[in-house]
Amino acid sequence: MSGYGRVGVAVRNVPRADAKAVERLSRHGVATIHEAQGRTGLLKPYMRPIWPGAALCGTAVTVLAQPGDNWMLHVVAEMIRPGDVVVVAMTTDNEDGMFGDLLATSYRARGGRGLVIDAGVRDVRTLAEMKFPVWSRAVNARGTVKATLGAVNVPVVCAGMPVEPGDVVVADDDGVVVVPRDRAAEVAAAAEARETKEEGTRVRLAAGELGLDIYGMRDALARAGLKYVEH
Amino acid sequence: MSGYGRVGVAVRNVPRADAKAVERLSRHGVATIHEAQGRTGLLKPYMRPIWPGAALCGTAVTVLAQPGDNWMLHVVAEMIRPGDVVVVAMTTDNEDGMFGDLLATSYRARGGRGLVIDAGVRDVRTLAEMKFPVWSRAVNARGTVKATLGAVNVPVVCAGMPVEPGDVVVADDDGVVVVPRDRAAEVAAAAEARETKEEGTRVRLAAGELGLDIYGMRDALARAGLKYVEH
Amino acid sequence: MSGYGRVGVAVRNVPRADAKAVERLSRHGVATIHEAQGRTGLLKPYMRPIWPGAALCGTAVTVLAQPGDNWMLHVVAEMIRPGDVVVVAMTTDNEDGMFGDLLATSYRARGGRGLVIDAGVRDVRTLAEMKFPVWSRAVNARGTVKATLGAVNVPVVCAGMPVEPGDVVVADDDGVVVVPRDRAAEVAAAAEARETKEEGTRVRLAAGELGLDIYGMRDALARAGLKYVEH
Amino acid sequence: MSGYGRVGVAVRNVPRADAKAVERLSRHGVATIHEAQGRTGLLKPYMRPIWPGAALCGTAVTVLAQPGDNWMLHVVAEMIRPGDVVVVAMTTDNEDGMFGDLLATSYRARGGRGLVIDAGVRDVRTLAEMKFPVWSRAVNARGTVKATLGAVNVPVVCAGMPVEPGDVVVADDDGVVVVPRDRAAEVAAAAEARETKEEGTRVRLAAGELGLDIYGMRDALARAGLKYVEH
Amino acid sequence: MSGYGRVGVAVRNVPRADAKAVERLSRHGVATIHEAQGRTGLLKPYMRPIWPGAALCGTAVTVLAQPGDNWMLHVVAEMIRPGDVVVVAMTTDNEDGMFGDLLATSYRARGGRGLVIDAGVRDVRTLAEMKFPVWSRAVNARGTVKATLGAVNVPVVCAGMPVEPGDVVVADDDGVVVVPRDRAAEVAAAAEARETKEEGTRVRLAAGELGLDIYGMRDALARAGLKYVEH
Amino acid sequence: MSGYGRVGVAVRNVPRADAKAVERLSRHGVATIHEAQGRTGLLKPYMRPIWPGAALCGTAVTVLAQPGDNWMLHVVAEMIRPGDVVVVAMTTDNEDGMFGDLLATSYRARGGRGLVIDAGVRDVRTLAEMKFPVWSRAVNARGTVKATLGAVNVPVVCAGMPVEPGDVVVADDDGVVVVPRDRAAEVAAAAEARETKEEGTRVRLAAGELGLDIYGMRDALARAGLKYVEH
Repeated sequence: MSGYGRVGVAVRNVPRADAKAVERLSRHGVATIHEAQGRTGLLKPYMRPIWPGAALCGTAVTVLAQPGDNWMLHVVAEMIRPGDVVVVAMTTDNEDGMFGDLLATSYRARGGRGLVIDAGVRDVRTLAEMKFPVWSRAVNARGTVKATLGAVNVPVVCAGMPVEPGDVVVADDDGVVVVPRDRAAEVAAAAEARETKEEGTRVRLAAGELGLDIYGMRDALARAGLKYVEH
Repeated sequence: MSGYGRVGVAVRNVPRADAKAVERLSRHGVATIHEAQGRTGLLKPYMRPIWPGAALCGTAVTVLAQPGDNWMLHVVAEMIRPGDVVVVAMTTDNEDGMFGDLLATSYRARGGRGLVIDAGVRDVRTLAEMKFPVWSRAVNARGTVKATLGAVNVPVVCAGMPVEPGDVVVADDDGVVVVPRDRAAEVAAAAEARETKEEGTRVRLAAGELGLDIYGMRDALARAGLKYVEH
Repeated sequence: MSGYGRVGVAVRNVPRADAKAVERLSRHGVATIHEAQGRTGLLKPYMRPIWPGAALCGTAVTVLAQPGDNWMLHVVAEMIRPGDVVVVAMTTDNEDGMFGDLLATSYRARGGRGLVIDAGVRDVRTLAEMKFPVWSRAVNARGTVKATLGAVNVPVVCAGMPVEPGDVVVADDDGVVVVPRDRAAEVAAAAEARETKEEGTRVRLAAGELGLDIYGMRDALARAGLKYVEH
Repeated sequence: MSGYGRVGVAVRNVPRADAKAVERLSRHGVATIHEAQGRTGLLKPYMRPIWPGAALCGTAVTVLAQPGDNWMLHVVAEMIRPGDVVVVAMTTDNEDGMFGDLLATSYRARGGRGLVIDAGVRDVRTLAEMKFPVWSRAVNARGTVKATLGAVNVPVVCAGMPVEPGDVVVADDDGVVVVPRDRAAEVAAAAEARETKEEGTRVRLAAGELGLDIYGMRDALARAGLKYVEH
Repeated sequence: MSGYGRVGVAVRNVPRADAKAVERLSRHGVATIHEAQGRTGLLKPYMRPIWPGAALCGTAVTVLAQPGDNWMLHVVAEMIRPGDVVVVAMTTDNEDGMFGDLLATSYRARGGRGLVIDAGVRDVRTLAEMKFPVWSRAVNARGTVKATLGAVNVPVVCAGMPVEPGDVVVADDDGVVVVPRDRAAEVAAAAEARETKEEGTRVRLAAGELGLDIYGMRDALARAGLKYVEH
Repeated sequence: MSGYGRVGVAVRNVPRADAKAVERLSRHGVATIHEAQGRTGLLKPYMRPIWPGAALCGTAVTVLAQPGDNWMLHVVAEMIRPGDVVVVAMTTDNEDGMFGDLLATSYRARGGRGLVIDAGVRDVRTLAEMKFPVWSRAVNARGTVKATLGAVNVPVVCAGMPVEPGDVVVADDDGVVVVPRDRAAEVAAAAEARETKEEGTRVRLAAGELGLDIYGMRDALARAGLKYVEH
């Protein structure tokens, strides 16, 4: 069974992606990694950083939370290992402020690198001053209760994308991308190759050469029937 | 009768919340005040500051405006007293640019501290340079006419929350919260108590202690049936 | 026929608005120009700059692109002349990341001043570092294919507003406004007159005078039936 | 104090609007009543009937519910008197399915006439077969828990409009309007007068006479500057 | 100049599309006509019929209306000729209820066939009983004022699509499509050809033949690299 | 690896859920099944039937399609077996009309029971007349191209929920729920038990008994602190 949406369980000692591969992925932007793994893995673009310039790369510990209830965000704190990113999915759409500077203090003390949450957060000015990286669906001062169980470290769907505990999460101003745990090294290699290639292209474009020529698009455009006409 | 939505009237000399209580509330953030008054009073989270770091605390003078029409925003200027915040509600959803740097100049000259508007504003770069604090639903260059009466200093519903003239309005990067005029001192006291308590918690969390233990959640989690399992 | 939506054609050598008029328009903000041409020409307010303080004025070269496909954004590069702004409309709503730092490098090398796109863009941190001005509907790391023809330099509807190649596009923190090619000089003159008049008003408002008196609104308010009452 | 958002209380024996006035209001549509009370009282238009032709008029018993939690919808059942309409407001935006055919069976057994809920409902086919009238924000099969207190028969803001227990709620295909308890008779009289007048207008319009002439708009249009031109 | 957005004018005696071509177009659905004119002309899909089964074909008389103001909907009544459809565009997004059964009575008396409006309408049950066809953005009981000039029979952008007076408007359960006045006969012919062709395809598909074979897609799929694999 | 988003592959002969279990599930509504499997499996509530009363139960064959491109909807036709439901997910948000009466004719001829699509559909009146059940995100006449590969019978995320080929899909007026292939019998049994229990409750509620008593909520409410007060 898929396990999506199962509540009432907290899983300990989930395996994480290889630390070396995570470090290699951390050198690339979200757009590059998304391309490098075949245009997959991207969370919906409504997930935005709460302060400009925030960037993040780490291994996922996952939370499934109930609407208006951040109880599981406390349970996950104990599971955080250095290098982890907390990824919070919801059982239903909700934008309440589930996370603030106190939880950020706690997560950081446990080695957590940041948060990706398909809900709201608050204390955003303090979080920016702490340089604690957060991607969220909303900023919202509304607080939550601690009354109903969700789950920790189960597979979740966060902002439209399945995430498993231990997957690599990379986030920057362009959004959030997830790399499956066992593909981390392969995707890192593809990202490196892509970046090298793009650097050469950038130089040629800066010199005024056209993508039409660099990528050899003119024949395909003609075959597709593009007609150039004078005004 | 409720009076919500009544047009054609401008009320003079509305009472304001106690100045001392307003000053005490100004020392706290929106999230704290929202919690301190029992998780009430928050405007919908689509209300966002137009420049980062904006913060505001003052007494409400209220406007009910028609869509595409900012006439009442001129009428309210005469009612502004030092320490007031103009709160604009709409008779229907509308995002036109009802307010710009000229009105901000006028409001500031009368002692106005800022604006909370459930519609659009424009001239946002100038407003940021003026450090004039504004929370709005949208940024929109579209101008408005002056043709149809609304009301000034009547009870309104702004971004989902009832606001009465004289209530305290507090706003920061987290959003906007309203404190009823006669609860200002009580809520200020509760906010102060909360802040003191949170400071102690922050120190313990920073030292690596868990919220699970500080807040004593483990028993309740067990009673609710949370199961810890190994991967 | 209107021509909106026609695909498969790229038009060369479209006439541009007069350079002197463009230069005069570049001294004014979007809100001023929108008012100066009779409250017309504004794109929908969901079009936002990707970095604060971005500002732009130039002549439009237009693109009609298919969803998830940025082929035509390469075709237009060859058409760009110094002073141009690329305006991208879509055949259907789509927020994929059609544009990034490589295309920006190319457009700038050809003399392009910036981009207005009714879709998504990526590499936004690099674009901000390059000071390349972009107004878009979304930020989105999701890349696109190059498989289906759109059109270049045909009339388009971008974010709700018809744009013709050669029209003047002005954009700032308040949004994006389009001035028809043959009205550029007339609108520039109206904007200058408006700005002069507003400067005088600003001084009077800053001194505490009311818009009610400066604009002579009191009689009209009385005729409309506004009643002043004491609390 | 306003009392909006206060939780933990259930108020018994709230006064209801006069039954005769409710009966008179029940003969008019929502659009008529909205006009008759001065274009006030309307809930946001996202509130839609779950089956076409549903119509409703009764006195409000109010519920304030937490997201994902329908506990209070059981508490209110005991408070329902014949002729009541249950009005459910939320502490935060939520579209979970809080209400289905079992609760409808219970409410009807107590004399309840229908439901207005700023959240989701389910079992909609059965509700339509029962001819149980419901206006909601969403249809959603997602169920809820019973874990956190809200309130019953306190003032609430439902879909943007303040509602007090005992107010009159009228709903039809056009939406939902609230008439304050102590204005019911006055608004009923105004609605009757309006309907009579409209009937005469309808006959004249059907005969081809123009609203321009019936309402005497031509002079005002000319004064406003409307120019008629030939193509 | 484009003329979009110009207010203060009402144009008389605009030419209409050829009546015979309109009649031919009326035999086809919106999806067919949209395809027949090269996938152009469609209004945004948020435009929905207010009763199921509504269908419409006629010549456009256009209105540009201000938010919350339906004055121009009365001015256009005088311009309606038998066979016309009133197309209402807005100067800014607005969902107020601008049109109800009285105006429908008037339009019908003048020969109007229906309404397409990028705003709200009310009295929808009566409109359905009258079988008066309406496509709108919203159903909303909220009424409007008559205070600010718009325009009649100028070019407008309605729900994202430019419409000129005299264009053909076709609408059904699938949405609304506009055919430029001078293309009506050409598009009618293309629609007829398309329908004939589709009829043959339908018979073959009903017999179990695959589109893959009928349209000859297998080679193109193979060239594009599609791999068939066994589970 | 997860496989979500992988394109370029079409998988043959995927296993389907047990036919007997599918048949048992078909006797229950979506709300019941959602509860019976622990409040999981529900697609986002924006998925709506295109005609009232539509109901569906079958085994999923899955499609991953590109925006504005319905090529893969033709590829899947060959894979359909009697009892299947086609489930279409998108690589990115898109509401184009990917499916109409011709594809419905084809799918039905192959034994397909209906369609669940996270995009738009057209020809909805004909589909209703055919009684072909469809749940979609939008109705949209806009057609699509056939140019870019997606995938068939890979795991997808449709409207926020992971779906694997062979899973059971149940849909009615309340929405769409997915039951994992290997849990079909277990969930069917739980649904049957739930329905039996609800029938008894319905009788008691209809007799005027309260849920407060039937479910024994009074103690829990008192412990949570609910206070009953007189008005």
